[in-house]
Amino acid sequence: MEEILKEIVQKTDSKIVLIVLDGVGGIPKDGKTELEYAITPNLDELAKKSACGLTIPVLPGITPGSGPAHLALFGYDPIKFQIKRGILEACGLDIKLEKGDIAVRGNFATLKDGKIVDRRAGRIPSEECKKLCEKINSEIKPISGVKLILYPGEEHRFVLIMRGEGLSDEIEDADPQKDGLPPKKAKPLSSDAEFTSNVVNSFIEKVNEILKDSSPANTVLLRGFSKYPSIPSMRELYLLSPLAIAHYPMYKGLARIVGMDVIDVGPTQDDILKALKENFSNYDFFYLHVKKTDSYGEDGNYESKIKIIEEFDSKLPEILNLNPDVLVITSDHSTPSLLKAHSWHPNPFLLYSKWERYGGSERFTENECRKGSLGIFYAKDAILLMLANALKLKKFGA
Amino acid sequence: MEEILKEIVQKTDSKIVLIVLDGVGGIPKDGKTELEYAITPNLDELAKKSACGLTIPVLPGITPGSGPAHLALFGYDPIKFQIKRGILEACGLDIKLEKGDIAVRGNFATLKDGKIVDRRAGRIPSEECKKLCEKINSEIKPISGVKLILYPGEEHRFVLIMRGEGLSDEIEDADPQKDGLPPKKAKPLSSDAEFTSNVVNSFIEKVNEILKDSSPANTVLLRGFSKYPSIPSMRELYLLSPLAIAHYPMYKGLARIVGMDVIDVGPTQDDILKALKENFSNYDFFYLHVKKTDSYGEDGNYESKIKIIEEFDSKLPEILNLNPDVLVITSDHSTPSLLKAHSWHPNPFLLYSKWERYGGSERFTENECRKGSLGIFYAKDAILLMLANALKLKKFGA
Repeated sequence: MEEILKEIVQKTDSKIVLIVLDGVGGIPKDGKTELEYAITPNLDELAKKSACGLTIPVLPGITPGSGPAHLALFGYDPIKFQIKRGILEACGLDIKLEKGDIAVRGNFATLKDGKIVDRRAGRIPSEECKKLCEKINSEIKPISGVKLILYPGEEHRFVLIMRGEGLSDEIEDADPQKDGLPPKKAKPLSSDAEFTSNVVNSFIEKVNEILKDSSPANTVLLRGFSKYPSIPSMRELYLLSPLAIAHYPMYKGLARIVGMDVIDVGPTQDDILKALKENFSNYDFFYLHVKKTDSYGEDGNYESKIKIIEEFDSKLPEILNLNPDVLVITSDHSTPSLLKAHSWHPNPFLLYSKWERYGGSERFTENECRKGSLGIFYAKDAILLMLANALKLKKFGA
Repeated sequence: MEEILKEIVQKTDSKIVLIVLDGVGGIPKDGKTELEYAITPNLDELAKKSACGLTIPVLPGITPGSGPAHLALFGYDPIKFQIKRGILEACGLDIKLEKGDIAVRGNFATLKDGKIVDRRAGRIPSEECKKLCEKINSEIKPISGVKLILYPGEEHRFVLIMRGEGLSDEIEDADPQKDGLPPKKAKPLSSDAEFTSNVVNSFIEKVNEILKDSSPANTVLLRGFSKYPSIPSMRELYLLSPLAIAHYPMYKGLARIVGMDVIDVGPTQDDILKALKENFSNYDFFYLHVKKTDSYGEDGNYESKIKIIEEFDSKLPEILNLNPDVLVITSDHSTPSLLKAHSWHPNPFLLYSKWERYGGSERFTENECRKGSLGIFYAKDAILLMLANALKLKKFGA
């Protein structure tokens, strides 16, 4: 696909708006999904004149995390381009990563008589975690030219970023995985990783020295060494100028990885909409992220998920007033309230443009989208439909 | 797919008719596509008892040229088998190519004081181009055993065919691409191409000598060196005896490349139908090409495209009277009158045979075909459905 795109993609003035209602798809409760129960006159009207379908995020039956689900929507094969856990954690803490960085998941832990007696250091409060990270950051100097920076997370968790030349992520976890075992050194999984491994072990020694009088958190465990992924950017692949309008750090991080500009916005739908209006003339691709459909799905809160959908419906006319050339409303994955978790179910997908076929769908719901002109297709191909409808793709072959 | 076919394909007496209504699919104008607007009682009746669906020519969102779109319909992955531009141009001029041939796109141009001052030689009339080609063909002798033949095109354009042993197409264009620059020699892109490159440069020198008193066309520019593709034939792959019934050279050329016999027919639907009847006993696969649905689509002529569809509908009973075992009516790509160009939209597909499931489609239209028993599928798989319904495929595995 990348080869083909290189030949046919062209820069134009047309604008694409991609709205992700995170986890919006559901399964029926008393016969109706959240989307079916919600009263959505504006979405209903739009669905009737849009190309609708269902997207499979990864493969049928596969439940994706936010990483692969979003990558697919941005046009990346989520099986080929996998983002490692440490990088995703770093995205979740809104850490601005650089190419070559190694991100590592860390725990504060308790070391006693040569053994890790509590891998979570009694789940210290987040506030203490923050103080410990600050203490270490202020005392640790670069090791063999490598900067090491800790970012506090919830309770005992943090993320370590290693920044410098010649780093590798082919490192076995420096974590015994179970309480009652001696600490484990980082081990290189390839000869390229020996330098990094030595830096990590020297870092752990220095931290142990800094924390020697601290209790219960007096050491660190490190796992999930992950290099910043080398993914071709949306700018290169699609010749787009993309902007991400999302409040939550994870989604901002994912957007940065694929080369989007990212702005800070508040958490409400009004905040997101205001940012879209303010920036509409400066970009040609907009990724808007609405989180709460997913959060209420995860909580099993069927009624509140419906309210978020209805709130979105009430804002829709303002988005249409901007006259984007292509408007897509969909989701990254489903989060049925009944399951209280991400699920494998395909996502409702709606594409509105003056160049698409329409007909078949009376509403923006799972069942009605399936009857639409696009049928069931892979989420990774959605970007091709957006680019095609924005007339940004030339003919393939003569 | 080729591996599997080898095991299961068998020769039988059953007959397959594949009718391509070029570019027939559309997008709605005032709510209706050309197919939806057309009055087609025969197609409607056939659709009700046929397996219908929609085919994706290459990938969702990708608009194909005629080459990849037809290759897919003939069962070739259009991404794996790409036909280069020079070969397609040669097809378009109805040049009978042989394996090993190199086809090259050429321009007559004006050389003055060591510079190409007009890459198009003032767009000389096609008649003059023809005379120049004849002059060169009559005076040029084979160079190092390689025959060089010019075929005139429109205005200053021609196609050069190189025929001989050991030729390569890994040659950089002998064309400065811009006016005001000195002429460029052909350059080999690999050591295998040195022989070909020398032949090309010696050819250009000889042409310059032949045209030295001609004006404004006194030299040639050559680009897009393309080797005749090595594609397994439909005879080998499917054990078919295929006949192409098409008027326009491009489609005849494509059919020859996949190993079909090709006959000369006039441009009307009656001409095509007559040829089908006359040859029906001599082959077991017939590819019929109706061009004008595409031409009127490209012209943005919604009404005339509808008339061609209605004309085809009126001929349909004569085709059904021949009792083919499998009848497929579809398109290579869509050409919506509103877009005035090829498009990415899937093609309506109808397969009539006594062994297929039917139901769901009331008409042969984009929306009604989508509701049919075949759903949305890739065009390259259509040949498997045709062969299966002709009972030409044995069981796969025990």
